[in-house]
Amino acid sequence: MTKHEFRIVGKSVKRQDVIEKITGEGRYTGDYHLPGLLSGKIKRAEIAHARIRRIDVSRALAYPGVKAVLTHHDVPRVLHYGSPHPRSASCTMDQYILDDRVRFWGEGIAAVAAVSEEIADEALDLIEVEYEPLPAILDIDAAQAPDAPLIHDVGPGGNLVIPPVHIERGDVEKGFAEADLILEGEFSGGRPVPTYMEPNVCIADWDGSNKLTFWTSTQTSFMVRGALAEVLGLPLNKVRVLVDHMGGGFGAKQDLFQHEFLCALLAKKCRRPVKMEFTRRETFLAGRSRHPFRLWLRQGFRKDGTLTAREMKIVYESGAYGSHSPGVTNVGTASATSLYRCENVRLDGRAVYTNTPIAGAYRGYGVVQTYFAIDIQMDEAAEKLGIDPAGIRLRNAVREGDIAPSGHPVVGYGLEACIRHGIRAFDWAGKRAADRHDPANPAIRKGWGIGCEMHGSSAYPGIKEQGNAIVRMNEDGSVTLLTGAAGLGTGAHTALAQIVAEELGVPFETVSVVHGDTDVVPWDIGAFASHTTYLVGSAAKMAAAELRQRVLARAAEKLQEKPGHLEMVEGVILVQGQPDRSITVAEAMGPSRGIPAEHLVASGSYMPTKSYSFAAHFVEVAVDTETGIIECRKVMPVHDVGRVIHPVAAQGQIEGGIQQGIGHTLTEDYVIDRTTGRSLNAGLVDYKMPLSMDMPDIETVILEAAPDPGGPWGAKGVGEDPIIAIGPAIANAVYDAIGVRFHHYPITPEDVLNGLRRKAAESSARD
Amino acid sequence: MTKHEFRIVGKSVKRQDVIEKITGEGRYTGDYHLPGLLSGKIKRAEIAHARIRRIDVSRALAYPGVKAVLTHHDVPRVLHYGSPHPRSASCTMDQYILDDRVRFWGEGIAAVAAVSEEIADEALDLIEVEYEPLPAILDIDAAQAPDAPLIHDVGPGGNLVIPPVHIERGDVEKGFAEADLILEGEFSGGRPVPTYMEPNVCIADWDGSNKLTFWTSTQTSFMVRGALAEVLGLPLNKVRVLVDHMGGGFGAKQDLFQHEFLCALLAKKCRRPVKMEFTRRETFLAGRSRHPFRLWLRQGFRKDGTLTAREMKIVYESGAYGSHSPGVTNVGTASATSLYRCENVRLDGRAVYTNTPIAGAYRGYGVVQTYFAIDIQMDEAAEKLGIDPAGIRLRNAVREGDIAPSGHPVVGYGLEACIRHGIRAFDWAGKRAADRHDPANPAIRKGWGIGCEMHGSSAYPGIKEQGNAIVRMNEDGSVTLLTGAAGLGTGAHTALAQIVAEELGVPFETVSVVHGDTDVVPWDIGAFASHTTYLVGSAAKMAAAELRQRVLARAAEKLQEKPGHLEMVEGVILVQGQPDRSITVAEAMGPSRGIPAEHLVASGSYMPTKSYSFAAHFVEVAVDTETGIIECRKVMPVHDVGRVIHPVAAQGQIEGGIQQGIGHTLTEDYVIDRTTGRSLNAGLVDYKMPLSMDMPDIETVILEAAPDPGGPWGAKGVGEDPIIAIGPAIANAVYDAIGVRFHHYPITPEDVLNGLRRKAAESSARD
Repeated sequence: MTKHEFRIVGKSVKRQDVIEKITGEGRYTGDYHLPGLLSGKIKRAEIAHARIRRIDVSRALAYPGVKAVLTHHDVPRVLHYGSPHPRSASCTMDQYILDDRVRFWGEGIAAVAAVSEEIADEALDLIEVEYEPLPAILDIDAAQAPDAPLIHDVGPGGNLVIPPVHIERGDVEKGFAEADLILEGEFSGGRPVPTYMEPNVCIADWDGSNKLTFWTSTQTSFMVRGALAEVLGLPLNKVRVLVDHMGGGFGAKQDLFQHEFLCALLAKKCRRPVKMEFTRRETFLAGRSRHPFRLWLRQGFRKDGTLTAREMKIVYESGAYGSHSPGVTNVGTASATSLYRCENVRLDGRAVYTNTPIAGAYRGYGVVQTYFAIDIQMDEAAEKLGIDPAGIRLRNAVREGDIAPSGHPVVGYGLEACIRHGIRAFDWAGKRAADRHDPANPAIRKGWGIGCEMHGSSAYPGIKEQGNAIVRMNEDGSVTLLTGAAGLGTGAHTALAQIVAEELGVPFETVSVVHGDTDVVPWDIGAFASHTTYLVGSAAKMAAAELRQRVLARAAEKLQEKPGHLEMVEGVILVQGQPDRSITVAEAMGPSRGIPAEHLVASGSYMPTKSYSFAAHFVEVAVDTETGIIECRKVMPVHDVGRVIHPVAAQGQIEGGIQQGIGHTLTEDYVIDRTTGRSLNAGLVDYKMPLSMDMPDIETVILEAAPDPGGPWGAKGVGEDPIIAIGPAIANAVYDAIGVRFHHYPITPEDVLNGLRRKAAESSARD
Repeated sequence: MTKHEFRIVGKSVKRQDVIEKITGEGRYTGDYHLPGLLSGKIKRAEIAHARIRRIDVSRALAYPGVKAVLTHHDVPRVLHYGSPHPRSASCTMDQYILDDRVRFWGEGIAAVAAVSEEIADEALDLIEVEYEPLPAILDIDAAQAPDAPLIHDVGPGGNLVIPPVHIERGDVEKGFAEADLILEGEFSGGRPVPTYMEPNVCIADWDGSNKLTFWTSTQTSFMVRGALAEVLGLPLNKVRVLVDHMGGGFGAKQDLFQHEFLCALLAKKCRRPVKMEFTRRETFLAGRSRHPFRLWLRQGFRKDGTLTAREMKIVYESGAYGSHSPGVTNVGTASATSLYRCENVRLDGRAVYTNTPIAGAYRGYGVVQTYFAIDIQMDEAAEKLGIDPAGIRLRNAVREGDIAPSGHPVVGYGLEACIRHGIRAFDWAGKRAADRHDPANPAIRKGWGIGCEMHGSSAYPGIKEQGNAIVRMNEDGSVTLLTGAAGLGTGAHTALAQIVAEELGVPFETVSVVHGDTDVVPWDIGAFASHTTYLVGSAAKMAAAELRQRVLARAAEKLQEKPGHLEMVEGVILVQGQPDRSITVAEAMGPSRGIPAEHLVASGSYMPTKSYSFAAHFVEVAVDTETGIIECRKVMPVHDVGRVIHPVAAQGQIEGGIQQGIGHTLTEDYVIDRTTGRSLNAGLVDYKMPLSMDMPDIETVILEAAPDPGGPWGAKGVGEDPIIAIGPAIANAVYDAIGVRFHHYPITPEDVLNGLRRKAAESSARD
């Protein structure tokens, strides 16, 4: 189907949730209220590593309005997570619901349910705790020291979360021997957190039949169902997980959190519903961050820029628990096999425990870190070799048929097209030739940089995924899609409705989406890994295609035609070539006295492999050499995401990713005191996200360069991609502006000023 | 499958809703609360027939706390019901949401939404109405008078709701000519109402996308969806109807009610949710009653008791609107073609409008009335011919292969078995030979009577029904059934879960039922016509069978066996003949890292014809000749309902039907003043239902005499049957006791005393 034939796909139709979100009528988990609802709160440790010698809740329990208090004495001692797919390679099983040991400052050690939030909060202060302090391991080096005490008994030892990931291809020594230039560098990154608008929140409600109904803001409702059922010892049909609108997740809401288990257990104990809602502060303390990292990278290049060898060692800091570290370490390490093709690679990826808050899944999932290093070193090589930075990327860019990080040949390849398009559209050569000075402000230096990325839709091969959809037609021809895919706020449900309407041949407005209730929607793996449109979209298309066949078969009977002679357009079934012969879908459904002729429902199930999306980001920065402030002025993200289902939603994803990427490159870092493990900036006052005023001009270009045969009409993922390339593009542009190289993020004004001073000192030393 | 092979079917398993109902945790519509919920109330006319000359709501609107007032000026002028299947032969389209004309005392003429129920109630009194009175037609005779004013402009005229139903078979004149005995009589009945525990209640809530979510206590959620969508001009996927637990419906909650439209319109106007909950008084004023009737019956018999001809004319009093009168008239009139076989019949059925409350669907649906007359006249014939009443029934009882009222041959025939079983088990001959005097009380006369009935499951052929079910397996082997069938309180969902568990081969406890949400469950015609177990049960069995095949296919791969060699028992898949080789369903589902190997969901759709259930009721009464009080002392209901799925639930249906039947035969009559049309006993103080203390000993016998091939393992309906035969059985027993014949219900103490006086007078006149 060529693009002009689409009726709905590729159009920025009105999002189905737009009115309720604008008017405030849309319900988020926190908006729900049940009769008799109690408020649950968590007592958090103020020590980074300790044993609990004594915990006394008697005063809290006696406090008027308190209905229950739980400590490690009161909850099942089950090792549960890690992440919500406990048997997955992406996770570990290293956390108890409550333990007699504290592993990070802010960890929950008790929970209270009371008739109001205020009373619950007050009761927390009445819980008396006596600790036996243990030595706190607060950074990667301390964790890896030979005599380091162990934070966990489980795992391979040495504070490793999992055995090291080793990947080796070709002959690295030979590669380096063939190199004309060898570069080596160390890179590192801070601890950005996904500051979703909606703090974590859940409500637990048990009914008389011992069934748990659980509202929660999660990306993975079926995983939550599974983990709750496993830990609480219930069959799956005794746990109903409900998710309505969500105010973002960005990967972090894939985990099953301590408070979710505690909420369920408090509600069970009280026999009343309990709500637990994080404060913003708690989203820092008890949420999930991107993994801080330390990375050593050595690469060899020929004179023409061709990569000959790559050696990389990366250590991800997992914090106190494993969470997604196994997945992040695997995906992140494997990502360094590609983007820029290299036959000879040797990679070593590790994740280590420290007594700091938990790192987890966050948009970019281990790849942000590796490509930050690789794309900066690529610029360094270009400079040394006197090659244009865009040119050296074109020379090395992965190509169709190369082995992707997933281990499969790349199909649907668009990286080269993205780079070439950006070179022209951004006027790369013209800009790089221009003056770095800003006539308006003599302190300003301008610079231009480029970064590239590729990222896969779906977690395959780590997880054998499965997308499911059920499509149902009502007797008036209106259609309901049932999907388990969560609506994080990306517009995924609108895109799925577009796919169904397009495939079925009905107006977009007649398709509605039912989601967020594990009792009724088909099983879903969760909304993560940039895969919802790709994976669930394919399943929805399959279900719609089957339903269309059944509707056409019905219509064929009524029209006395062969189904193959019919087509369905905007809810009207036409006999091909006979424009006067048509019936509506409603007529085909044959409502006879209000009763549909047939119960029309079709189910689609799709087992994907993996597709890759590509992007090149072109950036202009302005660095104030007096204040050290880096201003990101312009970004041209050029993305290949295959077929675009909803351009505005895709663009929104890209712009949001750039905003987050700018944040973690320049300002965002959740800082843990390196002597006490205490959080220093758990809140949006001290943790600096870019605001709308900080946003650059963004001129998004979406190429439909390389549709992937696995996605609906070739659609691929776009969720994670835009956060990856922006970081190195900014770092490279900063170098272009002021001639100072940074190998870490965030790059703060202090770093800039220190860098400028260092450079001036080196320069005067040379003179 | 023989009975002893059933694991779950035929066992009185614990009902799935039992704990939540006992503890009070189960939610009924009235238990729901939404933020900002308003209370809606209806202003009711206090005149039976009038035009509204003026209606002034300005004082009500100005009343603090009032948010909206609706009159006929403010609502769409759409003729809508009748009944919720507006294109069905069962209904008429004769009612506006609000009209400028009043057609019965108690009709809604305005609606108010306010912040509390009290304020809404107070505001009703501030609405000023000025009427132009019209002559009120308050009984069947007045309605049929040649010069009667017309209550409606629609319809065939002459205050008929529909054109008369004529049924003629054989040669009636010849039949009467061959008769040795011709009996002729007039019969009539009062206005019993289904006094369900849960008064009608609904909540309407519109969201920002103009979607209506509508909680309501209804038997027919999809019909409500359809009618609301039609009247409000919405596509079906913009109306979501939710039904949780129900406190009974008995047929009457098939209708779409005036308050339901008003609730939706008030909520739309206020942009806030609105709840409307009937008072008990309103369930009388604005609910639905059984049709009062007048019936003329003439039958011919040979000396041996064989029926030779039957002529019947019945007029059903529909009240102010048609509601289910078309269906009731058709079903009721056709019922007189059968039960007792007769080759020569001529039947005339009519429904007429009067200015009285609306009669509608109520358990027994027009058949209670006809079989009351037929079964009393059968007793009269037996007496005249000197034949035993049970014997004359055996002689005339319909037989397998006879044409049923539906027009199809009777299959699954059990009437003779019921009569014969009851004759033995009740010791019919012995009791009838006994003394009528009660040694304990000289005023008492005892008597024994019999009544028979047959009743169909499903509304076919009036409506071409369709039963649907979706069955889904979770990755731990637990199962969810999705059904649109409402849970009136009968235990239908438990029976459906039993059917699924039995067919699938999993433990009963692992099957849960999702129901009551039109957005997610398959289309359902509604819970009425005694068809849920028969119709939806068959669909559920089909879906479960398909799912079983798919599970076995998966298991066959794992076990490397042919699927045909496998069987599934209690969730374990066994290789036949190799007891050591088995896997659990959960293992077959292959949860690989928490991800099911396959999304297992299957859908079943069943198009039934109609099956018939049969019963003979044997009754002992004690009539107090001093007070006139009739005490029903013993009932032995002998029922053939085909395969019994849940014996205790079936027995509960039967005992409940007998309780209602005793009520309408002896005490229950909603009385309308015949000069003003005013309700005289709208409430449970003056309307007398039998209480538990009034209940007889009931010894229920359920024969699985005649399974119907159309139902699951031969199951047939049982919902309506038990209310039908009890009435004539009591009337016949009363005659047996005191020698006075009654041709009407309720038979009150006054009637008895008057009858005894009349009999004494006749007796002394003869002397």
